[in-house]
Formats: sequence, structure tokens, C-alpha cells
Amino acid sequence: MAYYRDYLALDKILDAQTLESDKHGQHAHDEMLFIVTHQAFELWFKQVMFELRSVIDTLNVPYVAEAAVATCHARLQRVNKIMELATNQFSILETMTPPDFMDFRAFLNPASGFQSAQFRVLEIALGLPEQKRVLKHYSDAMDPRDRAIIEQARQMTSLFTVVEKWLEKMPFMEASGFTFWQAYRQAVVDMLDRDRAEVRTLAEAEHRDPAEALAQIDGIEDGFHGLFDEQRYSEMLTSGVRRLSQRATHAVLFIATYRNEPLLQIPYRFIDAVTELDKLVSLWRFRHTLMVSRMIGMRVGTGGSSGHDYLMQTAMKQRVFDDITAMNSFLIPAMYIPSLPQELAQRLQFVNEART
Amino acid sequence: MAYYRDYLALDKILDAQTLESDKHGQHAHDEMLFIVTHQAFELWFKQVMFELRSVIDTLNVPYVAEAAVATCHARLQRVNKIMELATNQFSILETMTPPDFMDFRAFLNPASGFQSAQFRVLEIALGLPEQKRVLKHYSDAMDPRDRAIIEQARQMTSLFTVVEKWLEKMPFMEASGFTFWQAYRQAVVDMLDRDRAEVRTLAEAEHRDPAEALAQIDGIEDGFHGLFDEQRYSEMLTSGVRRLSQRATHAVLFIATYRNEPLLQIPYRFIDAVTELDKLVSLWRFRHTLMVSRMIGMRVGTGGSSGHDYLMQTAMKQRVFDDITAMNSFLIPAMYIPSLPQELAQRLQFVNEART
Amino acid sequence: MAYYRDYLALDKILDAQTLESDKHGQHAHDEMLFIVTHQAFELWFKQVMFELRSVIDTLNVPYVAEAAVATCHARLQRVNKIMELATNQFSILETMTPPDFMDFRAFLNPASGFQSAQFRVLEIALGLPEQKRVLKHYSDAMDPRDRAIIEQARQMTSLFTVVEKWLEKMPFMEASGFTFWQAYRQAVVDMLDRDRAEVRTLAEAEHRDPAEALAQIDGIEDGFHGLFDEQRYSEMLTSGVRRLSQRATHAVLFIATYRNEPLLQIPYRFIDAVTELDKLVSLWRFRHTLMVSRMIGMRVGTGGSSGHDYLMQTAMKQRVFDDITAMNSFLIPAMYIPSLPQELAQRLQFVNEART
Amino acid sequence: MAYYRDYLALDKILDAQTLESDKHGQHAHDEMLFIVTHQAFELWFKQVMFELRSVIDTLNVPYVAEAAVATCHARLQRVNKIMELATNQFSILETMTPPDFMDFRAFLNPASGFQSAQFRVLEIALGLPEQKRVLKHYSDAMDPRDRAIIEQARQMTSLFTVVEKWLEKMPFMEASGFTFWQAYRQAVVDMLDRDRAEVRTLAEAEHRDPAEALAQIDGIEDGFHGLFDEQRYSEMLTSGVRRLSQRATHAVLFIATYRNEPLLQIPYRFIDAVTELDKLVSLWRFRHTLMVSRMIGMRVGTGGSSGHDYLMQTAMKQRVFDDITAMNSFLIPAMYIPSLPQELAQRLQFVNEART
Repeated sequence: MAYYRDYLALDKILDAQTLESDKHGQHAHDEMLFIVTHQAFELWFKQVMFELRSVIDTLNVPYVAEAAVATCHARLQRVNKIMELATNQFSILETMTPPDFMDFRAFLNPASGFQSAQFRVLEIALGLPEQKRVLKHYSDAMDPRDRAIIEQARQMTSLFTVVEKWLEKMPFMEASGFTFWQAYRQAVVDMLDRDRAEVRTLAEAEHRDPAEALAQIDGIEDGFHGLFDEQRYSEMLTSGVRRLSQRATHAVLFIATYRNEPLLQIPYRFIDAVTELDKLVSLWRFRHTLMVSRMIGMRVGTGGSSGHDYLMQTAMKQRVFDDITAMNSFLIPAMYIPSLPQELAQRLQFVNEART
Repeated sequence: MAYYRDYLALDKILDAQTLESDKHGQHAHDEMLFIVTHQAFELWFKQVMFELRSVIDTLNVPYVAEAAVATCHARLQRVNKIMELATNQFSILETMTPPDFMDFRAFLNPASGFQSAQFRVLEIALGLPEQKRVLKHYSDAMDPRDRAIIEQARQMTSLFTVVEKWLEKMPFMEASGFTFWQAYRQAVVDMLDRDRAEVRTLAEAEHRDPAEALAQIDGIEDGFHGLFDEQRYSEMLTSGVRRLSQRATHAVLFIATYRNEPLLQIPYRFIDAVTELDKLVSLWRFRHTLMVSRMIGMRVGTGGSSGHDYLMQTAMKQRVFDDITAMNSFLIPAMYIPSLPQELAQRLQFVNEART
Repeated sequence: MAYYRDYLALDKILDAQTLESDKHGQHAHDEMLFIVTHQAFELWFKQVMFELRSVIDTLNVPYVAEAAVATCHARLQRVNKIMELATNQFSILETMTPPDFMDFRAFLNPASGFQSAQFRVLEIALGLPEQKRVLKHYSDAMDPRDRAIIEQARQMTSLFTVVEKWLEKMPFMEASGFTFWQAYRQAVVDMLDRDRAEVRTLAEAEHRDPAEALAQIDGIEDGFHGLFDEQRYSEMLTSGVRRLSQRATHAVLFIATYRNEPLLQIPYRFIDAVTELDKLVSLWRFRHTLMVSRMIGMRVGTGGSSGHDYLMQTAMKQRVFDDITAMNSFLIPAMYIPSLPQELAQRLQFVNEART
Repeated sequence: MAYYRDYLALDKILDAQTLESDKHGQHAHDEMLFIVTHQAFELWFKQVMFELRSVIDTLNVPYVAEAAVATCHARLQRVNKIMELATNQFSILETMTPPDFMDFRAFLNPASGFQSAQFRVLEIALGLPEQKRVLKHYSDAMDPRDRAIIEQARQMTSLFTVVEKWLEKMPFMEASGFTFWQAYRQAVVDMLDRDRAEVRTLAEAEHRDPAEALAQIDGIEDGFHGLFDEQRYSEMLTSGVRRLSQRATHAVLFIATYRNEPLLQIPYRFIDAVTELDKLVSLWRFRHTLMVSRMIGMRVGTGGSSGHDYLMQTAMKQRVFDDITAMNSFLIPAMYIPSLPQELAQRLQFVNEART
């Protein structure tokens, strides 16, 4: 039983805006916007982390029930909606002009940059590996308490880890005498053989040399072989070209291929939501970079190293689930997809429908 | 000199979420979202009020410089962007399903409704008159501190008041031998006379009775006369049909009509931003109503009075600046607009251009 | 094999903008925006209808497979995203000022209003009954071809109809010796009895008369009885208070109550998407109303009947699935929900999990 | 006088969707969405080009009146709103899953990529120089008609050109005995001298070597000198480090510095809208890149050259107005800004205010 204002702790929330420009006796009107927008970011990041931890905990068990995947999916969809909205908040911040930012920017040192511990924790909770991080060291301007929070996050299980484990346990990839990766590999071979035949026929008709086109098909085949060959996959893991285990990778292909089977509908949507989140974090970073370049220019005055380029790199490269997104290069058209043995197909149904 | 987390008071902001369901030992996962979303609303309302007060204070002076109007316009544009984003926050809240809300709704009494004192203060600061308020009494569930804040807001000058005063002081409506309202009235008469002639010609050609069409034109003319006749305007004010003073109303027409003159460009955009804000507050309310109907159904179970209908009424009727919006019914096509005397036209220029 | 421009028929799409103001020799720059925005609306409405028809056709069969419901859900989510975006298009149109609209408004007669046949068809396809339509007759300005299209749409099956039928066929409401509506009714009785006991205890402790609070509970109970009593439900159908059949109504409650059972997860999300669409159509209408009031003022000059009020009424009242949304008033807290018999619970699982 | 459907040419617009998958007898439901979304993009790009050409034409005159700049600003704001909405359209397209895209992707060759001639024309109309273009040659898949349209666009005046010319003509930079760049340069020197003194004092107090900090200030000073020194600026133009003329660059600094003077308010907003457009085009490209990586994976299977990386590069590097955005690095705090001579300040007023 509480009043609205007590329930929402508005005494804390609405009393948390102290302008540095006021402390320096040089009131800068727009500093309030700067503070409130960043606080709104932090509020939403708290919610994002709350959902993310619950998703990780739900998946971090020996056996994940189907209903649990549905819950995880719903929570990731929420996280994605929040990231979309949070990204739009930059448009509000940008109602501040760069010269207006100049009026209080100097007062913010060393807090002027975006040093959100929560955002860093979010990256770690997603599973961003340190070797992918563009800027590896801590900023000198980082609060020791924040460092501690970040170090603690490093000890926790990441979304990448639990998703990989959950994928590896996908039980239908060898069942009822069916081995998914073998069937899929054969389907790819059939598809590419047909492509080769077509290329040759066309080349003959047009009196052209089919060599180049055939070489391209060979390249595609080689790409597929990399997925299915244990030795080569293992080398890709070692060299860092891939990070997701081979079995988990196969599971992604399996789920995407048979996504319309009742049991795989929610898993497919869940995987899609995971890569969507990865994408939205990139988009947030890119949008942030555009905002920074608006506020303080695109290059440092002296031509030295550029914060702008660094930020761009984080937006482009710090993807956590790119191995899953990459699987979309390896989908094959419906006509080549291997059919499932009837028994297996039935195991992917609901009890009710399986009986009929 | 402060760390990011101290500058943003994150110890307060991120420690302000206490779930009632936890207090009752029945953790409801989605209550966190409920709290965080409402806190985000309140943060943005704080920013909205900060801007609104600055706009009111800037205009609440004997002489408002043109540069000041530009500042007010920029700040209202910011407010409008915030209101748009805040409205989108309902989509996040609606990732919670109604049955999930059921899990903690009972714990919230009496704080379950949207009892934001800041939103009420915002309405008052805009200038919502008590007689337009659909629900006039305070909710029993309102905190006495909030009542005090609201009562205090009632003592302060509203945006409506300062905008009306600023409009009334528009200096060019009688100048250089030109009286705007007389010229405009004559233009309307000319326009409607031509319309009547057209109606008669057309009716004759088609052997129809022009009476109905002529009556309609008479009705339009009567509407215009109501604007220009002091006696009738005064009656409209008394009866509550209009609330904006006659002189301010004429100024709105003047500014809209000559909005491309350099001196009137920013004033026109400012007025437009004011009515836009009015519109966005309506939209926020409507969106809120849709959310409430999603969460708790569209009618009260017993068929008694309906919160849903009440909320709909507030979205429809609690407009503050509808007298300004209504002026768009009284614009006339460019070809009928009275030309300004050259001297007056020049006074609406910049020094630099006036000289050339 | 086609070029991009041929594939997208850009010769048609980009050559479809003819300004009436140009025809009249009075070029109005903003008319292009008016045309393009409305064409974008119509393009999206075409897509919406394409998805909606596919959903209706998919459900309009004797037996709807679970996988089909998942497809329908995905398509409605798409429709909902389109409606959200389309609603935002009004913000683009509103970069046109009302006086700029005046420059070409007169040339548009009788096409000035929003006379989209596709939108009308959308309403009919959703299942808007004619008796709920605020304005019942056709506009005189409507093209005979459009009337024909609309009349044809009336002959087709609506989303309301197929959703109702699909709900009525929900097979688990009487199964394994469990009759859902009886169990739910009993749960409600138990819940309200406990509420009454609490009210009496509290009243005694505070020496107050419990009569008013008890009467309120009686009212709530009566509301529930109306749902379960065949006679009373039938009267509600006759009087128009409700439109959805009693059995379908029970199915909504059933699905919402046991929404976490694997077999009901997608059905629940689908129902939610249906009411979301209903909501978004309302929101589109409300946003449209705000745009109209911006462009041509809030009242007709003569004080006669108001287009603005009419449009507001359509936004408020023309809901198709309000009977489903209303069910959220009849949910009960988790602790009162009747448990399912084990056998029935198992039938709501996947084959795979049911076996373990 | 036309019906709504004729006015909007709906017979063309709604009859322009022909599915390639249907032609091949393999109906792919989601191809309709693919077509409609791209048509919506093209419709909006037509509107963007319509506004952009009008802005360029308005500025492409010997003397640009202030009222004209206001019109250009309003039109660019509209363009920016359109670009924001168009970017959101990707979210609609992404309701299509990658495997669903597979169902018709093969039928689209060679039209599968985004080969919009209008988008290319937009880049050229903004003023993207060929040397900045990441991919310089035409795609083989481009229609000869599109090439012709693009070649024609190259002959037309760009926004960059007219904005540069308009900036160069800014008349107040040498007036009333005041030379802006000299005064600004002196202000920078004063500011940096004070910074140096502070650095030395602080270093002495803390017994540290000030050399590094002083070197940094020297670097900043050198950056400013590059702006003001004719020889060095000319070298930057030659080497391609800068593209905007020195005089135009000074005008940007002048307008930003004195942006609150009445005459400069609209010019400042206009420049801001220009760089905002540049930013939004980048954002569109980045969002497009994310969509492509979702649909067809992040890398080409064989490890060959990557379309994804190329697209990322265009989003990062193809900025047209980065020289203007970069000026935000060269703003100085309000306390160092040189005051304007009274006579000049007065020339930046309105006639009306200058008189009082």
C-alpha cells in the first residue's frame, strides 16, 4: 500500500539532477536535457539487464523446457523494443546544438564521455569477447566502483554461452535414422551439381568458357564444406574466424531449415530475436557515434587519433552473434531441403496433432 | 569534476526500483518493467516542465524580443519531441500481457492508476482551465504532497496566459494606416460575394435552386462576423465557446496570413509548436487510454461507470489551445489576402534587407 | 529476369503524381507531399489487405493446424508494424502548414477528404459491423468503382468471423472430465467469497458498515455470471452489448488463463495480435483526426455539425474486437486459477516433452 | 475535379505489384512485402528529390533573400523527417525471415540488390564527389535508362555547391571595421594562452612536467591555424583533407558563433538541417547494411570480397557535409567569443527592433 510517488521513488528520481554549470555559477539551460537523457538511458539499460539476466538464468539449466524458450523469446522481444526506443532518444538529445553543448562541456570532465558501466556490462552479458573489443583498456576516467561492477560481470555466464549450450543440446539432429548434417551436406552437393550443369549448358549455348562461373560454385561448395568438416571447423575456431561451436552451428541451420515444424517455431523466433538484439546494439552504437560527431566534430582538431573512427569501429565490429547471422548465407532453397523421416516429423508436433 | 556515475546520480536512479510483489513474497517479473517505464515517464515530464517553465518565464515580461521567441520555439520543439517519444513508451509497457499485470496489480493499490502529479502540473502549466477538466475532484488516492504541488502550480502563470498576452501585443495589426481586421473582413466579404455569384451562375446553368448553397455561404460569413464583431465575440467568451481574447485571435490570423514575412516567420512557427504540443498531449492521453483498456479491459465488470470512457473524454476534450487551432478554419486563399502597405511590409524585414 | 526499375514498376509508381494546382496553373509546392503521402498510405493498405486476406483464408477452413496459427500470428505482427509506421506518416504530412494546404485545397473537391476505399475495405475485412459504423451512408464524393469494391468486400468472410469460429472449436475446454467454464466460475465464486470475508473483517476492525464494499463485490460477481449464464449471455448478444459468441468468449478466457501451456502459447499471442490490430486502427483514426483538425480547424465555421467530432467518434467507438479486449476485466489472479487435470495438461505439451 | 482514386492514380499505384515468384509458378507470399516496401522507399525518394531540387533552385541565384532561407530550412526539415521514417521501413521489411527471402531471392536476379537510381541521384544532388564514392563503377545489373538518369544528375548543380556559394556571400564577416576571422583567431590565441597558464600552474603545484599537456595545446592551436592560414588551407583543399572553401568555412564558424542574432537564427538552423540530412543518409545506409546482413548473412560463403563490408564503408565514409560538421570541433566557449561592433550587431536585427 503506497502512494504513486512513493511506489515510484519519485523523491529519488526527480531529485537526481544537479547541473555542474550551476555549481560553477554559469547556468547552462541545456545541461538538464543532457542529464535527463543519460538518466533515461541508464534506466532502460537497467531494465535490459534485468531481462537479460532472467533469460540467461532461465537457459542456464541442464534441461530447458519449451515453455521456457517462449518466455525467453518474449523477454528478448521486450529488450529489443527498449533498444529501439533508447536509440530514438538520441534525437531528443540532438535538439541541443553543438554550441549549446560548449556552454557546459568543459564542466563535465572527466565525465563528458559515455562511460556507462551498465552498457559495458550489457556487452559482457551478451558475450562480447575481449579480443573483439576495439578499445581494450579501461578509460582513466572510469570510476573504481564501475570497474568492480564490470569485473564482476566478467565472472558471470553470458547469453552467448547459454545459447550455444542450448543449441548443442537440440535433440532432433540425429534421430530416427536421420543425421541432419549429412542430409544437408548431400542436399548442398545436389544443388551445386545442378547449378554446375546449368552453367555448362548455358555456356555451351552461348559459346562461353564456363570456368569462372564453375570456380565460383566451387568456392561456395568449399564454404559449405568448412561448416561440415570437423578438422576445418576446428581450424576456424582456433583462428578466430568462427566462435560458435560446430554442433551449435548445425543446430542453427537445422532450426532455420525446419522452422515451421511446431516444436521449432519458438526456437526459431528466439534465435532471430537474439541476432536482432545484436543488430540493435550495433545500431545504438552507430547512432551514438553520429551524435558524438554532431556534438564535437568529426575529427580531433590536431589530426591525431580520432574518437569518431574508434566509435565507428565498435559499431561495425563488436558483434557477438555474427556466427549465427552468418548462417543465413548457408540456407538452401525449399526445393532442396531434405524431408524429415515421418517419425521425426511427428516428434516435432504437439501431442494433440500427433494423435490425429 | 565528477565521475559519470556521480554526475548522473546513478546511485539514486538505479536504486529506486522496489517491487511490491517482492515485499509480498510473490515476485512478479514484469513489475520491474511497470516501475521503470513509469519512472522514465516521470523523468521526461520533469524535462518537459523544465522547458515549459523556461518558455513561460521568457514570455512573461513586458517586452518580448524576437530572439526570445526563437528560443521559446526551439524549446517547445524539444518538448514536442519528448512527448512523441514518451508516447512510444507505451509500446514497451504493452510487452507486458494483461494476465502478467494481474500478477501484481492487486499489490499496487491505491497506486495502480496513473496519478502523476507532474502530468497534472503540466496540464495546469499549459493552461487547462478547471471547467474543461473532465474529472474535477482529486482522486482519494492522491498523496497530500502531490495535492500541495498541484495547488502551487495553480498559482503560477500558464503558457496560455503568456501566449495570449504576447499575441495581444503584436504591434503591426494597426500600422501605417492599415487595420488588419478591417482589411481581412473586407477580403472575406469579397471572397464570399464571388462564391455567391458562382453559386448563382452554376445554379442557373443547371436549373437548380441556389438557396441551400447560398445559405451555407451565409453561415460561413456569419462565422467570420463572430470573429470580428466585438459584441458577439464577447458573448462567445462569456458562454465559453471561446477563451482566447479577440485581439489575440486576430493576431493569430495576422501571423498565419503573413507568415512568410521575415519578422513573422519565427512567431508563426512558435504558434504552430504550441498547438502541436496541445495535440501531442491529446495523443499521449489517447495512447494511455488504449493501454489501460488493454490491461484491464474496456468496461468495468459490473457495467457501471467506465474509466475507459472517462479517459477517452480527456483525450478528446481537454484541449488548451483549440481556439488557436480553430483559426485554421478562417484562413483565406492567397488570392484574397490583403496586401500590406509598403511601409509596414518593410518594417517586417531585417535591417539589412530593408536597406537594399 | 528483370531490371530493378522494371521489377518495381517504377515507371508507374514514379509517374503517378499529377498536381491539380498545376492543372489550374497555380503551382502549389506542397501538393506533391499531399499526393505522395496518400499514395504511401494506399501502398501500405494494399500490403495490409494482402496479409489480412491470407490470414482469413488460412483460418477459414474446417480444421486449423497449429502451424497455421503461427503463420497467421507472424502476418498479423507484420500488419501491426505497418499500421504503426503508417500512423507515423501523419507527422510527415504535418510538415505542411494549414495555410500551405489552403493553396491547393480548393482544387481537390470532391477528393479533399480521406475517401480511401481500401481503408473501408480494411474495416469490413476486420469485421466492423454496419451498426457500429458512426457514419452509415456513403459519401456523395465516392467513386462508383469504389462503392463496388466495398460492396464486394461485404460479401467476403471477415477476420472477426474466422477468429470466432476458430475460438469456438478450441478443443480442450471440456476434456478429461474437466469443464473449463464450470471450474472458472467456481474459482470466481471462491475468490469473491474470500474478498467478502476480508471486507467484513476489515469493516469490523474499523467499525465501518461493509454494505457498500459488499455491494461492489456483488456487482463484480454479477458481471461474471453474465458471462457464464446462457440466458443472460444470449440477451447481451440480442441487445448488442456483446457480439462474440459465448463459446468463443469462454475460449478467450481459457487461452488467456493457460497461456503458458505450450499448445496455447501461439494462440494467446495470436489473440493478442488481433486486439493489437484493433487498437492500432483506432490509433490511426485518432491520429488522422488530429491531422484534420490541424489542417482545417476544429470546428466548421458555422457552428453546425462537426467533421472533427464525427472523426473522434470513429476513433473511439468503431472497435471490432472489443469483446476480446474486454475479457481482460475477467481475468483472475494466478492463485485462484483452477489446475488442469494431468491428462489434459499433457495434451497441451509437445510430443517430445509429453514423453519424458 | 477528380475522385480520390483518380487524383491519387491508384489504378497505377495499386496495380504495380507483380511477383516474380508467381511468374515462375512458385508463389512466395513474402515477395509482395519486398515489392511494396521498395516501392514505398522509391515514393519517398521521389518526394525527397522534389524538395531537394526546390531547395537547390531557390539557393542557386545571385542574391538569396532571408525569407528564401527559411523556406529552404522548412523543406529540409521535411526531407529529414522523411528520411527518418524511411529508415524505419527496414523494420517492416525485416518481418520477413531470411529463409522466407530464400523462397524468391533467386527469381530476382539481377534485380536483387538495391539498385535505386533515385538514391544514387540523391547522393549526387547532395554533392557526393566521385572520389569519395566507395564503389566507383556502375553495377552491371544497372539499367541503361538508370545510367542516363544518373549521368544527367551529374550535370546539375548540387546542394553542396549552392550551400558553399551562399555561405561565401555571407555579408557580415567584414563589416563596420570588424574582420571576423581575425577577431576569432585572436580569441583562440587568448583562450589557449590561458589554458597554457593553467597547465603550468597546475603542473608546478603538482610537481609534474607540463610538456605533454602543452604539446597538446600546441596541437590544438595548430589545428585552428590551419583554418585561418590561406596557404595551409589551400594545401588541405588540394590534398582532399577539406573540400569546403575557406571563406565558406569561416562563414560556418561565424553563423554558429553568433547564431542567436536574429538575422542568423534561420541560417544556423538551415546549416544544422543540412548536416542532419547528411547524418540521416548515413543512418539509412547503415540500417540498410544491417538488413542485408540479416537477409543474406554477413560474409560471402567463400571468404571472398564482402558486400557487407563495402556497405559498411559507404555508411561510414560517404559524407558530403563533414567539413561543416567538423566545424563543431572549432567552436569556443561563450566567454571567449569576440563581441560584435554595435553597428554590426544592429544590422543583424529586425527593422522594428533596431529602431527601438
